[in-house]
Amino acid sequence: MDLFEVANPLLARGKRLRAGFLAAGWRSYGGQPMAAAEIQAGAGLELFQLAALVHDDLIDASPTRRGLASAHRQFHSLHGRNRMISDGNTFGAAGALLLGDLLLVAAESELQAALAAIPGNANRARVVFEKMMAEVTAGQYLDIYAQSAPWSDNPDVDLDRAKRVIRAKSARYSVEHPLALGACMAGANYEEEEAIREVGSPVGEAFQLRDDVLSVFGDPKQTGKPSGDDLREGKRTVLVTLAMVRASGSEAKFLKEKIGDPSLNDRDIAKIKEILVNCGALAEVESLIDARAAAATTAMERLDLDADAEAFLKTLTSAAITRVQ
Amino acid sequence: MDLFEVANPLLARGKRLRAGFLAAGWRSYGGQPMAAAEIQAGAGLELFQLAALVHDDLIDASPTRRGLASAHRQFHSLHGRNRMISDGNTFGAAGALLLGDLLLVAAESELQAALAAIPGNANRARVVFEKMMAEVTAGQYLDIYAQSAPWSDNPDVDLDRAKRVIRAKSARYSVEHPLALGACMAGANYEEEEAIREVGSPVGEAFQLRDDVLSVFGDPKQTGKPSGDDLREGKRTVLVTLAMVRASGSEAKFLKEKIGDPSLNDRDIAKIKEILVNCGALAEVESLIDARAAAATTAMERLDLDADAEAFLKTLTSAAITRVQ
Repeated sequence: MDLFEVANPLLARGKRLRAGFLAAGWRSYGGQPMAAAEIQAGAGLELFQLAALVHDDLIDASPTRRGLASAHRQFHSLHGRNRMISDGNTFGAAGALLLGDLLLVAAESELQAALAAIPGNANRARVVFEKMMAEVTAGQYLDIYAQSAPWSDNPDVDLDRAKRVIRAKSARYSVEHPLALGACMAGANYEEEEAIREVGSPVGEAFQLRDDVLSVFGDPKQTGKPSGDDLREGKRTVLVTLAMVRASGSEAKFLKEKIGDPSLNDRDIAKIKEILVNCGALAEVESLIDARAAAATTAMERLDLDADAEAFLKTLTSAAITRVQ
Repeated sequence: MDLFEVANPLLARGKRLRAGFLAAGWRSYGGQPMAAAEIQAGAGLELFQLAALVHDDLIDASPTRRGLASAHRQFHSLHGRNRMISDGNTFGAAGALLLGDLLLVAAESELQAALAAIPGNANRARVVFEKMMAEVTAGQYLDIYAQSAPWSDNPDVDLDRAKRVIRAKSARYSVEHPLALGACMAGANYEEEEAIREVGSPVGEAFQLRDDVLSVFGDPKQTGKPSGDDLREGKRTVLVTLAMVRASGSEAKFLKEKIGDPSLNDRDIAKIKEILVNCGALAEVESLIDARAAAATTAMERLDLDADAEAFLKTLTSAAITRVQ
């Protein structure tokens, strides 16, 4: 069926970061590696992530995802291939919207099945992922709201808002909640859950800051997304809002004019990159990333994990922060 | 928060048909009226229904719902009131998309909470609603696919497709699955679940056929939707496809030209109504509805319910089939 034909190749190309952190949380509190619950819950998180991406790409009109055409573009092509009547853009949007819904439902099914396969009380784990799902969706709304709001006269207000958006929308979701979910599934108690969240929280923020940097300075061949997408969409990232605080008057004016302009060309992007480097915003984001990596290391030492679990968690953490894709 | 401000008035105005049928299934097999599980599961179904409607209205660009502006129109207005930059249509669509996602997540939470409150094994009930959710979404895709496909040369093919779409998309979903879910929650065994599905299936089809009729012939003040919406959207309903089989050559040509034309005016709609009446399609749909009501009555007698449960189920059934809104 069309819905699966679009979903499967997109699913196959994910980094599976969230499934990885879930496995790390699970194994940190005694869960058996590769147990059915670990695999099903990981699948659930990856299905949920693809649901969110399919809907995000539709909202942002992004043409590519994971190196492939994004879902709404694929449904648009199918409309052309099948010589359908009706408008191709409308059909593409409807297909992507429904595919995202179906993936959301499938994600819930996998997560519920995973919880049925764990020993003991599943309620704490269920609360973690329900909260996670609601938080991501509300955070995504905050994000589009922020990028539709006029720039404030005080750049510190925008910066503060940018930091709140990344916490709600993706930092907690990408790392902290998956880790906590795995831990709760394995039977971690309340204090243990809090302790592993202390690791996940800074890693998640560093992960998102890295994402902001890659979306401007990354290699499109590696990231699977065109360079400068966030700039065209007007995303109020920490990187961009920091530049607003630090840039000179004329540079800040240039940024306000250009960021959010869908017709941004390569020359504009090059100039924006130059401003982001010269005003020190890029260096400051890198140092924010370093500080969060250090905080994560300190928090990890307090967990007192066995050697295998610690090595696994460290590998994932470092991959999330230093990645190029 | 904006998301709730849009959702709450829409939620308040639902007919709560699905919650009603769930309660009927629950009470038919010994569930206590107004028990926590009945209320939470009913809330879950109504949240899921609103999620589906919010996304449907976005896909169909429908301006109204339940007598209010549809969700994407409400977010569009909010964009104007808050003097936001960015495009208002895009913001409206994004808001509705995310609201639908949030409602979907909330629906799952309520349903899971309900299942945690029932005695015995919740797995059968869980399978019912997971299947229901996936089926509705896939059915909705079939529906938009069908309305984007060229009319076939053989009208019987279109009619057959229309009947399959209503089964997958809404007949099972509106009545049969809610009844079965309530029954399974109350502990109905496999044979009992099948027996109550035999009631729900014809009632659901009759409900959907009534919906098709109301969308063309209903009073917009009562239905909360503009008259002729389905015609403008080109929905391939049983009513319309039957008319294609029965109408004369020139009438069928007129229908093919006009159905799916967003600029359809009141005169076109009056002419289409006339064709639907004169060719006998409307009368045939009414007789299909009667036949299904009779099948439901026969199936209900076989259930051997206690007097209260039977009266409740009969009242709901009759309301679903003879309604004017």
